[in-house]
Amino acid sequence: MSRIQANPLGVTGDQDTSERSTSARNASSPPGRVDRWLASQLAGRFDASRLHIALWDSPVREGRADMPVTVRFEDRGALYKLLANPAANFGDLYSAGRITVHGDLMVVMDEALKEPRTNPRLAAVLAHLRAQTPTLADSRDNIHHHYDLGNEFYKLWLDSEALQYTCAYYADEAMSLEQAQVAKMHHVCRKLRLQPGERVVEAGGGWGGFAIFMAREYGVRVRSFNISKEQIAWSREWSRQQGQDSLVEFVEDDFRNISGTYDVFASIGMLEHVGVGNYRKLGNLINRVLTPEGRGLVHTIGRDRRQPLNPWIARRIFPGAYPPTLREMTEIFEPNDLSVLDVENIRLHYARTLEHWLERYEENLDAVRSMFDENFVRAWRLYLAGSSKAFVHGTLQLFQVLFSRSGINRIPRTREHVYLPVD
Amino acid sequence: MSRIQANPLGVTGDQDTSERSTSARNASSPPGRVDRWLASQLAGRFDASRLHIALWDSPVREGRADMPVTVRFEDRGALYKLLANPAANFGDLYSAGRITVHGDLMVVMDEALKEPRTNPRLAAVLAHLRAQTPTLADSRDNIHHHYDLGNEFYKLWLDSEALQYTCAYYADEAMSLEQAQVAKMHHVCRKLRLQPGERVVEAGGGWGGFAIFMAREYGVRVRSFNISKEQIAWSREWSRQQGQDSLVEFVEDDFRNISGTYDVFASIGMLEHVGVGNYRKLGNLINRVLTPEGRGLVHTIGRDRRQPLNPWIARRIFPGAYPPTLREMTEIFEPNDLSVLDVENIRLHYARTLEHWLERYEENLDAVRSMFDENFVRAWRLYLAGSSKAFVHGTLQLFQVLFSRSGINRIPRTREHVYLPVD
Repeated sequence: MSRIQANPLGVTGDQDTSERSTSARNASSPPGRVDRWLASQLAGRFDASRLHIALWDSPVREGRADMPVTVRFEDRGALYKLLANPAANFGDLYSAGRITVHGDLMVVMDEALKEPRTNPRLAAVLAHLRAQTPTLADSRDNIHHHYDLGNEFYKLWLDSEALQYTCAYYADEAMSLEQAQVAKMHHVCRKLRLQPGERVVEAGGGWGGFAIFMAREYGVRVRSFNISKEQIAWSREWSRQQGQDSLVEFVEDDFRNISGTYDVFASIGMLEHVGVGNYRKLGNLINRVLTPEGRGLVHTIGRDRRQPLNPWIARRIFPGAYPPTLREMTEIFEPNDLSVLDVENIRLHYARTLEHWLERYEENLDAVRSMFDENFVRAWRLYLAGSSKAFVHGTLQLFQVLFSRSGINRIPRTREHVYLPVD
Repeated sequence: MSRIQANPLGVTGDQDTSERSTSARNASSPPGRVDRWLASQLAGRFDASRLHIALWDSPVREGRADMPVTVRFEDRGALYKLLANPAANFGDLYSAGRITVHGDLMVVMDEALKEPRTNPRLAAVLAHLRAQTPTLADSRDNIHHHYDLGNEFYKLWLDSEALQYTCAYYADEAMSLEQAQVAKMHHVCRKLRLQPGERVVEAGGGWGGFAIFMAREYGVRVRSFNISKEQIAWSREWSRQQGQDSLVEFVEDDFRNISGTYDVFASIGMLEHVGVGNYRKLGNLINRVLTPEGRGLVHTIGRDRRQPLNPWIARRIFPGAYPPTLREMTEIFEPNDLSVLDVENIRLHYARTLEHWLERYEENLDAVRSMFDENFVRAWRLYLAGSSKAFVHGTLQLFQVLFSRSGINRIPRTREHVYLPVD
């Protein structure tokens, strides 16, 4: 199977599945009173000056900056399906082109992820619809997901400096994506107070950008673990090009198999994929491989309170991913005699990072279209826009947790050193 | 009953209790082989170049800076009682003068609170002794504690600036106690980004120093809750003298009865006395009184993992106190839709604060002795020295947790503003 595929998400339009033919036919009959009432109830949840709901009989209006954004239902089935479970179904309907957005998708996501205004009448209708349509709601739940979309795809919209597929740090609001990813890496290294010659182990190294950065900028020796063969190959080649291959070793293995002894443990954007049930094991591992004076940092997407991942994201984008709460994260530290020194929540930085990614994604649409079909193009746009707004509205958090072994006093007395100008 | 008492801890020397007459008599018979073996086992747990164990027949050596500190058992009962349960019994034995320290008590605390070196033979003997002496071990557990020792006592050794009986912040290592307490108050206010005219509610305000500081330095209006009549009276008088009584209101009531609406919730050094079972209620209360864009900070002694307070401290110094873990603290935030923005662990600053307090305490011994008996003088010295070393070795933590309502974006994007020079 080719690495780059036309439809890696397995999302299909209505016309492609025979079971959809009824609702597809329905789309051709004009909206009735019930359809219009449902649409008006839906519209009532949003700020009318920003977002307009249209049905399949209304003319398509192109978006203008001074006009509300139009969300248009292209068939009756799409309207019912959305109302039955908006969080779960919007993604596929939008990806399939059965819901179209005319104007800025970011505005739609912003409205959708705001504090929901309660509408008891709509809630009752939704409960009713939901009870009537379990098979409709469940019918697309088969996962045809493909996670590995190829380096070429990510290179289109990630930073060119270090290919960081994690939250950047905008020390200054005006920073470019490249500058902010470099600032993020410095921010982590400064919190850890890396010293030349120290040994660092990295769990989940992506394309190796951070490992190479630590070696080059801080003179540490890095072993970086990753289970992706392709990323490991890329990382090795890249570190050779950068002349850092004597200091950085890339190991194709699961973090659970980390061996050796290290001064520092670092993990940026892996915990989301570890699973809460494995946190204690992760802590055991850290405890096992750290020197007596060791320290570490875990950087992860998180939550203020326990909540499942958005079902569409879980199905189409990140199967098995879970953003933990701080309470859940303590399972890494408390049973393993590790001491939390510093927690920073930088969720607004991830909102900005995703804006930057989305801008580049849109700039490179032609290249994306040469790799994938329109379903994919829309799904990925939605994922980037929706995630950005989830960070803006606090549905998602971004935690950096700095820790050391309990009772170790090589910890910084204050955090001031993190904020000194970089020379 | 007088506010200042000769023996507020209820600790008495052996000679004062008839049930001690047997062990007191034992003290007069010279140490035997078993006594010496037990003492040597005990000595084996410590660094011999720093700490020397002596029995009641050896000559008393005055401490010298270049000599090991001597810990001297003044009778056989003291030796057995200590070995039966060192953490629980050292305090009373030292306070009663049955264990004497010749040289720097800080060195003894340092050695005692280091990572314990396992000694399986001693552990077996201790288990045996413990099984034989349940009544001996329990006999002093009656609580004659008096918490309110009077403003005059605390004024002898707390900072003169704001009478802060909580951890200071040494932005610069060379800071005086006064400077570091001012720096702590600025540190908290800057994390909270207090703006003139905002309303702040304080839970547990001590002598009112922080409330007055916030009003004077940041122009906020403060309501400060405290259940101590005496501290409230002091606070009111002080705020009048400072001309801040129009901005600061002191309320003699429990934090559970806080009413009104506030932009900011602040609590420094109260959570230790709240009890884990009340954390959710505390969070409910914060949720109820904060404005929709509200934020807050909780500053508390904590732990890396669950552990009871040292039994002597719990009995003689802080009945009912409990330092929580971060996991336990999340019970305030997660069920109440509050978002943790920043956690800072500044335990080494409390170690230094306690050093400063102990220095002043020793400088004012004559005044302390005019208020209390020798038992008290020793007990309080031990509490200050022992706590300092507990923070050094990580037995205790000091957490500052900054939070806001979930999804509120008035939070600082970075923490840099906290580290700008104070004008």
